[in-house]
Amino acid sequence: METARVEIVEVGPRDGLQNEEAVLSVADKVELIGRAVAAGIRRIEAVSFVNPRRVPQMAGAEEVMASVPRENGVSYIGLVLNRKGLDRALTSGVDEINVAVPATDGFCLRNQGCTVEEMLAVCDDIAAAAETAGLPLSVTISTAFGCPFDGETPPERVAEIARRAARAGAVEIAIADTIGVGVPRQVADLVARVRDVAEGARLRCHFHNTRNTGYANALAAYEQGVSVLDSSVGGFGGCPFAPAATGNIATEDLLYLLHRSGVRSGVDEREIAATGTWLGTLLGKEPPALLGRAGGFPAS
Amino acid sequence: METARVEIVEVGPRDGLQNEEAVLSVADKVELIGRAVAAGIRRIEAVSFVNPRRVPQMAGAEEVMASVPRENGVSYIGLVLNRKGLDRALTSGVDEINVAVPATDGFCLRNQGCTVEEMLAVCDDIAAAAETAGLPLSVTISTAFGCPFDGETPPERVAEIARRAARAGAVEIAIADTIGVGVPRQVADLVARVRDVAEGARLRCHFHNTRNTGYANALAAYEQGVSVLDSSVGGFGGCPFAPAATGNIATEDLLYLLHRSGVRSGVDEREIAATGTWLGTLLGKEPPALLGRAGGFPAS
Repeated sequence: METARVEIVEVGPRDGLQNEEAVLSVADKVELIGRAVAAGIRRIEAVSFVNPRRVPQMAGAEEVMASVPRENGVSYIGLVLNRKGLDRALTSGVDEINVAVPATDGFCLRNQGCTVEEMLAVCDDIAAAAETAGLPLSVTISTAFGCPFDGETPPERVAEIARRAARAGAVEIAIADTIGVGVPRQVADLVARVRDVAEGARLRCHFHNTRNTGYANALAAYEQGVSVLDSSVGGFGGCPFAPAATGNIATEDLLYLLHRSGVRSGVDEREIAATGTWLGTLLGKEPPALLGRAGGFPAS
Repeated sequence: METARVEIVEVGPRDGLQNEEAVLSVADKVELIGRAVAAGIRRIEAVSFVNPRRVPQMAGAEEVMASVPRENGVSYIGLVLNRKGLDRALTSGVDEINVAVPATDGFCLRNQGCTVEEMLAVCDDIAAAAETAGLPLSVTISTAFGCPFDGETPPERVAEIARRAARAGAVEIAIADTIGVGVPRQVADLVARVRDVAEGARLRCHFHNTRNTGYANALAAYEQGVSVLDSSVGGFGGCPFAPAATGNIATEDLLYLLHRSGVRSGVDEREIAATGTWLGTLLGKEPPALLGRAGGFPAS
């Protein structure tokens, strides 16, 4: 595995921050993004074009995009949940559009105010407009392993959404364990099922460490050939429906695991760990990430 | 894997408590053990026969052993680091003796006051006396993946210690990632190496989640055929040489991972999670375990 490589998509500025009590300023968000880029990150879920009255943590998306570093070929992803959000995204200067389509109605209704079927129609509409605008679209299938309201997610349902997302024109499909309930053997199963139906689309995986299975899941995805993984600096990023739960897998801890496994990423895990500690200070919380506390592999 | 089974060795009463600031009373330790037994645990590292002036957290080992539940065929393990400790263990009523032999001199000198070679001689002596007393001996090879003082641990060194431990008469050999630096591919390598040389001895693995690799490592060990895993209720248990670091992998989170993977343990993960929360209250710390915070898999 010595020449193996993985692409890290840093989701801290969006998924990491959107459920935190503290609301970061535009300047702090831009600094967070700048630090990630300086550490070697080349793809970032930077902003979300949702209603800032509903999600004040995500306010100022356009201002953030106007100030992010533009050297180094970094690709900035904007999350979009409806046509209005897409219009904002297209004028903001993002490089990629991401749409989240939950696999379960219970989550979709509460999080996005529509059924999965309705969200798939929205996705079709966004996909057509993104194509016209020349921006690549990725679709994240959330609650792909389980739902706080509907329980177990049937894997066939995830595969069906993936098939339709690929047909709509998504160049990348992400399998997301939004509430951190999955285990590696389910990851292997879902990756195989989605790969079977998502013709031409690249696969990405997105894990939360809610029950301490997130890092094992990420490694399982990598071992199944998924070379794009989401993670969040410091491991921030909860779920509004599970307030006590830990967040996304932490970029620094994922990097430790991958690098020690012989997988390269081009990202400096020590710089990311320092950024996680810095972000914890801003948010007034100890980061769920452990590398910043424990330090790296001790030198002899 | 539906009929697969794993044996959990609960190490909370010893490894979990020995580095905590709070010192539990004998009654609290006995309650901790009683709760683990009630949840289905059948092997427990219950006590350590070290100098109570040096490790006050481990004082009262004899009193603990005099009060533990004796129904249900539970096997109680006592940790022993010298001949004096063994003599105490033999009169205390433990069912098994465990000796820790670090793989690195840097750790052995600071933790046990002797070189690895000297510790192996102590181990030979303890093994002979344990055999005479009719008690099974297990040997835990600590710092098997890395050492805070010596850096990387050569796997050949771990295999050599395992070979000598098996020759001395250990019926079980544990590979321990004392400072939580290992990753799954190293686990697979070490398990294969130790199995090759430890004739007749059963393998056990012991992981810490210091850098969020512990659960992936435990699953890797299981997938390599290791069916005995250490874990600690609540995930308590630090390392005196890394005071900020998180502890052992948590029994409840390990059980969640294994049970959802189709591996049975005979232990109730919800009862263990409740015990982890209870122990956190006693110690005045939030448990590193996540299941107690997040709850189990949501029902539909």
